[in-house]
Amino acid sequence: MKFMIIGGDAAGMSAASRVKRNNPDIDVTVLEKTGDVSYSACGMPYNIADPDRSIEDLVVRPAKVFREKQGINLLTGHLAEHIDPSGGRVTGSNSDGQSFQFSYDKLLVATGASPIKPDIEGMDLEGVMVLKSLEQGRRIKSYIETHRVNSAVIIGMGYIGMEMCEALCARGIKVDMVKPRSGILPWMAKELSQVVQGELEKCGVGLHDGCAIEKIKAAENGLQVVCRDRTLSADMVLVAVGIRPNSEMAAVAGLELGPQDAIAVDRGLRTSDPHIFAAGDCADAYHVVSEKRTWIPLALRANRAGWAVADNVLDRGVELPGIAGTAVFKAFDLEVARTGFNPAEAREAGFDPAEVCIKSRSRAHAHPGNNIIHVQMVADKKSGKLLGTIMVGHGGVAHRINAAAVALHAGMSVAQFSQSDLAYAPPFGPVWDPLLTTANQLLKKI
Amino acid sequence: MKFMIIGGDAAGMSAASRVKRNNPDIDVTVLEKTGDVSYSACGMPYNIADPDRSIEDLVVRPAKVFREKQGINLLTGHLAEHIDPSGGRVTGSNSDGQSFQFSYDKLLVATGASPIKPDIEGMDLEGVMVLKSLEQGRRIKSYIETHRVNSAVIIGMGYIGMEMCEALCARGIKVDMVKPRSGILPWMAKELSQVVQGELEKCGVGLHDGCAIEKIKAAENGLQVVCRDRTLSADMVLVAVGIRPNSEMAAVAGLELGPQDAIAVDRGLRTSDPHIFAAGDCADAYHVVSEKRTWIPLALRANRAGWAVADNVLDRGVELPGIAGTAVFKAFDLEVARTGFNPAEAREAGFDPAEVCIKSRSRAHAHPGNNIIHVQMVADKKSGKLLGTIMVGHGGVAHRINAAAVALHAGMSVAQFSQSDLAYAPPFGPVWDPLLTTANQLLKKI
Repeated sequence: MKFMIIGGDAAGMSAASRVKRNNPDIDVTVLEKTGDVSYSACGMPYNIADPDRSIEDLVVRPAKVFREKQGINLLTGHLAEHIDPSGGRVTGSNSDGQSFQFSYDKLLVATGASPIKPDIEGMDLEGVMVLKSLEQGRRIKSYIETHRVNSAVIIGMGYIGMEMCEALCARGIKVDMVKPRSGILPWMAKELSQVVQGELEKCGVGLHDGCAIEKIKAAENGLQVVCRDRTLSADMVLVAVGIRPNSEMAAVAGLELGPQDAIAVDRGLRTSDPHIFAAGDCADAYHVVSEKRTWIPLALRANRAGWAVADNVLDRGVELPGIAGTAVFKAFDLEVARTGFNPAEAREAGFDPAEVCIKSRSRAHAHPGNNIIHVQMVADKKSGKLLGTIMVGHGGVAHRINAAAVALHAGMSVAQFSQSDLAYAPPFGPVWDPLLTTANQLLKKI
Repeated sequence: MKFMIIGGDAAGMSAASRVKRNNPDIDVTVLEKTGDVSYSACGMPYNIADPDRSIEDLVVRPAKVFREKQGINLLTGHLAEHIDPSGGRVTGSNSDGQSFQFSYDKLLVATGASPIKPDIEGMDLEGVMVLKSLEQGRRIKSYIETHRVNSAVIIGMGYIGMEMCEALCARGIKVDMVKPRSGILPWMAKELSQVVQGELEKCGVGLHDGCAIEKIKAAENGLQVVCRDRTLSADMVLVAVGIRPNSEMAAVAGLELGPQDAIAVDRGLRTSDPHIFAAGDCADAYHVVSEKRTWIPLALRANRAGWAVADNVLDRGVELPGIAGTAVFKAFDLEVARTGFNPAEAREAGFDPAEVCIKSRSRAHAHPGNNIIHVQMVADKKSGKLLGTIMVGHGGVAHRINAAAVALHAGMSVAQFSQSDLAYAPPFGPVWDPLLTTANQLLKKI
């Protein structure tokens, strides 16, 4: 059997490895347009922050190992351009300019996502960068190390923007963040987002939300981000306004698309074509709370979906239950985590949400090093079901969120979740964990 | 209505407060034999470790507040000695030697637990101490601060022993730990307990397991713990070999007892007498995994049970689902946590356990500050159900265990748990959280 994979990052390589490990007789070919495979994309901000680490440290497993140890026909510098589902063929061209054509029995589209490049003047100026691929990470790190970069403007205030903000600050770079819409992290309650805002400001970051950006232009001493009411000068500009799925080729091939134009897949990662799978940042997923399709591209799902594709190529009949949209990021000393729906998303999914925001503590009464933890929790008034949780705090947030995530997978009500027997010891939390205190308060509203 | 409570710690005072808050007309009387109410017992080791903190800091709410602000008839120095269920009366004596008699409509027995005092010679020598009540904590702290204590022997190697070991070391005291049975933390797999043993030894603690203790005796310069094959000298001895429920009075009154002589209660915290509740360390509970009675006295359960008693005194018909036995403690820089059953307990509860022990990482590939996390996970071969998890590591263990605890409450199979969408970012864990990696491995065995 010929199993072909387009894209050699998390989903693609995990599928390739698992198929080959389980059945070495299957002919596995991976087409990767860049020269990089299997790297920790999420680690890039932390690597860029550290002058003593090489960006190449992020490579989890080099191409050589996949080729020589695992017997995968891994073709880097190979850009797939066209899928022909009826003929079972993929055509494209390699970095030497030569065109290629391969036939497949089963195909996995794992083309990932790309940074959105907003349609503003100056996006192609030197020093204006985006971050998604390792090549882009390399470029940013090298730019910082070979240019005099004292200041940077980050356009966008999402996960990547926040993580890169911290990374650049760690390199001694003064950072301004700017975005057109008003509100820092508008997906969380004001009580929580204010804490993040306070942390960023405390660390010297300039925050400019609600600033329509007109253009980026080259100035005498660097770059200028020109907004309607202000102009921000900087030595470099990072554009981090989000990503979009690389699904054009799939769409042209006639595969159905789902939310936000991600490739629609069923629980077995099958696209609308029976011989084609899709996985990773280019594909959608079912949300465990709403059971509806959603697109929340994150690393764990990509890896897990890659495995599931492998299992289904091996005819094991695997179906993934779905995702809860659980995520965490660090903003300087602050941990920010979420799982499930916020009230707006809950309403959109057809629920009647009740919510509470509470302040609790990261440690026991009178225990040193005690910090505030802010929790926002959402439930459905009708069914009493837990719908989502957001947490912000200096410590003790990143892993706590997982208890709420598991509760979402289990379809627990807030009443059930509030009765969970969570661990307690003074250095790690109050007797009533912040999640339990919040659940207890939320129960009063439903 | 007269609601009487015997015992003024976590369960007793939380019940008293909640009843009074919801119905000020109910006459609430608390009989507490010591002078202390509502303190953080679990905080004692950490407080004792710190010369700059007063032991009185552990008092969460002083007696005065309960009396004057909440209108609770709180009688400290009142030792209840006899319950007469047929007459609805409690008799006893106070610290002035006067006897008392009170009648009740509803009674809560919240008499807690006491340290087990092994039957060895020398238990009553000066400098030989136990730790459970605040009064005992006060005595230990004061002893350290008024005597020349350079060395200590701790008899017992459980939670309290470990926490006190760290506390005494923090005060510059050389600690030896000794126990008759062999094996450090024998309830966990050797791969994990060796990590704890290594941490203790690295911190200079002498470990003497499998040493039968013959007596404690006064020597010229302090105390000696005489074992069959060695004699350990010390300036003080802490006996921490476990606790037992204070259930004698309940037993004499004819109330049914459950496992380990804890007072048997149903899910509504009702004893075998319809007018008497029991809660806190003196009472048993249902285990969410086995649905059988168990006795695992911990602080969260005590507080939660106190509330549930209050709700049932208020006729709200509350039933608690039960406990998972989730617990965490710190051993120097190590975090040790557990939830549910180990293989032996699983077998005893009638399951056919499979287990794995794996080593994973606390952070992502190549992220600085990465430590090993050891996970032991147990499942039932027949049903595939998750039965328990134990974790040991330098960071990232204390809150992770809660995800497994929620899974136990939800009755999840390992397959379901392994599909949980847990949070990922490089500073907080690998893409596949250690819990997921372990679950994936465990799936291969069932």
